[in-house]
Amino acid sequence: MNTYKLIHIFTISSMLLFLSSNTKAQSDDYFKAYRSEWLQKAEKNMPSLARSIQKPLNIIEIRKNPEAFQGWKAISVSTADSLFTRPFNKTQPVMIDFGEHITGFFSCDITPSAITPDSPLRLKITFGEVPAELATPFDPFPGGLNRSWLQDEIITVMHMPATIKISRRVSFRYLKIEVMGNPAYPFMISSMECEALTSAQYPPKPLPENCNEMIREIDRVGLHTLRECMQTVFEDGPKRDQRLWIGDLYLQAMSNNYSFQQQDLTRRSLYLIAGLSHPNGYLHPCLYEKPTPHADSRRFLLEYALLFNVTLRDYLEATGDRETALSLWPVAKRQLDIIDTYLTDQGLMDFERANQQWWIFIDWRKELHKEVSLQGVSIFALEQSYHLARLLGKEDELKHLPMLIRKMKKAAHVNYFDKKSGLFKGLLNPQISYASQIWMILSGVASREEAEQALVALEQMEDACKPGTPYLYHYYIEALIESGLNTKAREKMIDYWGGMIQKGADTFWEAYDPEDDFLSPYNFFPINSYCHAWSCTPVYFIRKYPKIFQNRS
Amino acid sequence: MNTYKLIHIFTISSMLLFLSSNTKAQSDDYFKAYRSEWLQKAEKNMPSLARSIQKPLNIIEIRKNPEAFQGWKAISVSTADSLFTRPFNKTQPVMIDFGEHITGFFSCDITPSAITPDSPLRLKITFGEVPAELATPFDPFPGGLNRSWLQDEIITVMHMPATIKISRRVSFRYLKIEVMGNPAYPFMISSMECEALTSAQYPPKPLPENCNEMIREIDRVGLHTLRECMQTVFEDGPKRDQRLWIGDLYLQAMSNNYSFQQQDLTRRSLYLIAGLSHPNGYLHPCLYEKPTPHADSRRFLLEYALLFNVTLRDYLEATGDRETALSLWPVAKRQLDIIDTYLTDQGLMDFERANQQWWIFIDWRKELHKEVSLQGVSIFALEQSYHLARLLGKEDELKHLPMLIRKMKKAAHVNYFDKKSGLFKGLLNPQISYASQIWMILSGVASREEAEQALVALEQMEDACKPGTPYLYHYYIEALIESGLNTKAREKMIDYWGGMIQKGADTFWEAYDPEDDFLSPYNFFPINSYCHAWSCTPVYFIRKYPKIFQNRS
Repeated sequence: MNTYKLIHIFTISSMLLFLSSNTKAQSDDYFKAYRSEWLQKAEKNMPSLARSIQKPLNIIEIRKNPEAFQGWKAISVSTADSLFTRPFNKTQPVMIDFGEHITGFFSCDITPSAITPDSPLRLKITFGEVPAELATPFDPFPGGLNRSWLQDEIITVMHMPATIKISRRVSFRYLKIEVMGNPAYPFMISSMECEALTSAQYPPKPLPENCNEMIREIDRVGLHTLRECMQTVFEDGPKRDQRLWIGDLYLQAMSNNYSFQQQDLTRRSLYLIAGLSHPNGYLHPCLYEKPTPHADSRRFLLEYALLFNVTLRDYLEATGDRETALSLWPVAKRQLDIIDTYLTDQGLMDFERANQQWWIFIDWRKELHKEVSLQGVSIFALEQSYHLARLLGKEDELKHLPMLIRKMKKAAHVNYFDKKSGLFKGLLNPQISYASQIWMILSGVASREEAEQALVALEQMEDACKPGTPYLYHYYIEALIESGLNTKAREKMIDYWGGMIQKGADTFWEAYDPEDDFLSPYNFFPINSYCHAWSCTPVYFIRKYPKIFQNRS
Repeated sequence: MNTYKLIHIFTISSMLLFLSSNTKAQSDDYFKAYRSEWLQKAEKNMPSLARSIQKPLNIIEIRKNPEAFQGWKAISVSTADSLFTRPFNKTQPVMIDFGEHITGFFSCDITPSAITPDSPLRLKITFGEVPAELATPFDPFPGGLNRSWLQDEIITVMHMPATIKISRRVSFRYLKIEVMGNPAYPFMISSMECEALTSAQYPPKPLPENCNEMIREIDRVGLHTLRECMQTVFEDGPKRDQRLWIGDLYLQAMSNNYSFQQQDLTRRSLYLIAGLSHPNGYLHPCLYEKPTPHADSRRFLLEYALLFNVTLRDYLEATGDRETALSLWPVAKRQLDIIDTYLTDQGLMDFERANQQWWIFIDWRKELHKEVSLQGVSIFALEQSYHLARLLGKEDELKHLPMLIRKMKKAAHVNYFDKKSGLFKGLLNPQISYASQIWMILSGVASREEAEQALVALEQMEDACKPGTPYLYHYYIEALIESGLNTKAREKMIDYWGGMIQKGADTFWEAYDPEDDFLSPYNFFPINSYCHAWSCTPVYFIRKYPKIFQNRS
């Protein structure tokens, strides 16, 4: 996930006002007493990275194919070994397939061939997670994020033999090597490798063999996606943005609980987020590890702050680690003040005001209206926070919550439920969206019957605003299960994540619309992340609900 | 100097036949007994490099100006310090002037500004010896050499703060920094430097203060040019080709004798060239130091092989180092066989046959006919070699030479001297060139009177083929002095080298035609070397002939 440029600018400008007024109202640092301890604990829980050497598999061509994902198909033409024995020249780029998605450090050896090189060698090496990244010109760059995320590097080799090391960590399955300029000599690429990194050390037990083939495949790809994103924090995407977002963390940690169980990584991530909160006590939605851990101190995302609480509850239940949960309890408690700030007397979240002061994400769909979702995710967070409080014996500190939750649910039902259609829609805009139904269900606003009815009705509505990402699709599957629509949950998972696999996914994608291969939140599909944390949750569903997902059919 | 692509291909293909026939006639390695000793001595004479930290001087703009060299003028707009205190953004490239030509390793520090960088920073840094290099688009590249010599590097900075080190050694006075892509954050360049390298350790005595101002300036720039080219060998150009060519070495060593007197460097260069000769005993014209010293084993340049002998004679006279000269005497002797191979009964060099089998350089002028020059440079080399033999007490080994030289001179005079015009021209082509007159004078074919007459007559000839490089211009000045035209020698030096200075030269250029700023042997002027070894020889003339060049007028 990343901020789309316009949203970014908008958020920052309105945020500054909000922050300055807020900070004055607070002491210098809300968490002064805890912060350095939290950061020390984050450091102490740094996982070690497992390193493995990956070698290229095949030389490929990337051919136009209207049937293939994004119109390009990788075709093997020979084994990679043949590359190392033939002189390279500038006539044609060489494309290579490493056989699977890798995150790490790339290097190759360049050796002179028959004729002494009389000038430097200039190479362009482009790394791609999907074939189209190697076939689509990057310039002029039409995208909304920084073009620098695209993984094309230009290297000058002054003398041969030489070992080229690409200094940035890259994330790829495919790569393309192009000779720039006009060298009058051939040369050899005599070896090539990638030192692959992950902190996912202990692979989970495999699924039973009699499990449906596509479910097994979805699980395998989900595990690989999660594994690639597990570095020294849970990254959202190892190609782009390479950082810790609370919303992604929630889904990753949940999937990790059911797979690698690398709990030091979750612990580290939670402590980092807490330790790097704003002085006003609110959490920044994302943070950067390098050169030293720091947050983007001007960025706030409302429901991500709330999802911290949910993640902590989840972590406590998975690990029984009360020490961590108690240490971070003040953070969870403080986030609930966000809801108070925007709550109307009626028990509704004041969407317009909140939306001016915070970024409210929900999903990547420009056309999505988020009023109903905000109410839903707020109630969801309150319920989970109360649950956490009870687990910690802190419910006395949140005595008012049960009544508040009831009030907010009721207000939501009264205002947003359209009896005629059986669907939820906002007061500000009559849009029918998956997001609205999902969050009314997960928050418990909809009754079981209303939930089932709404989810079934949605499918008949051609113009309902559909999920644009596996992120929202996760909550959709969760809502289906919550509503007892287990068969549909399984079908939808096979449709959606299985659809990516049928289109060639080695890892699951940041954005996916079955009807639009080129969907991009950033206006240029090659800059999408094709190995994205929030897309790994089939790992969680399949293993948490074996009866739904691991049956043979 | 570097081979122009077409010449290169042509030379190599014809050379292969020549080599294979030659190698068979020889033992496995003509210098088997000496080679490893020579290479050891080369290694032993490796000079240390003096390192100094150079800081940027000014921020500049490079403005169009039809009066300026190549149409572009560098204008200072502020001191460089102001760069380090202001946020950088992508709107405009920043251009910087280091105040003088530098060869070394560039680095700068990048620091985040107010907003946390949310994406990598991609910078393009272009280094230029002259302003036009920063103002001329490099692509599409029209040149005949490899575009990779152009010094533009693209850097990806993944995290800030960061120190950027450009891994290639660069040669520049000016640089341009461009922000690529579309970062949504400003950043700071908080410091910048270049670690400058040279093996020229001991600056020569300054010229007397009453010496003509332009001569002093020419001397200063000549010394700086030579200094920049003095690395761990005498390089031809520190920007391009960064290697040891015999023809450049001859002029550099000669200038070094009268200035830095860094004789280990000359010794090392001579031993390297000998140690890396072809197994048939002939010298390769250029060699590469890295990763380990090696020659371009398929390239031969006729008069450069011969100029080795002249350089050795010069070195012996300057140093009295008989040990080195005796050790390398077999090499000098072997090069004379090249002349034997092409000598006709009449005493002329068989130009057509030699030209098929060797590259004959003389000057960068496509239209130049080289028949007469080849005869001249061959006689010149024979005379100098005999001189060397006598210094070493080896004249018995070359007993036949005095008679051969007389015969060749006579044949040249009979065949090439046109009594009517008083000028020399070839049998194969009636072209009148500076090169032909120069080499007929330096070889002693022309009498003193004929020489003077020819040099004066040349100037009246509008369509005479003029020198295209300071390399041939050096021999022109030498010929003028040889012919007693001392005033003209001085005038011509001020005209030619002073002309470069008036056009803004900090170091002297590889190619210079006062009437054509864009002259390039490689079809694209930015790839010319603007700090070129063979252009430094005013240092030699001014100090060897103080009466001619150091007078006040």
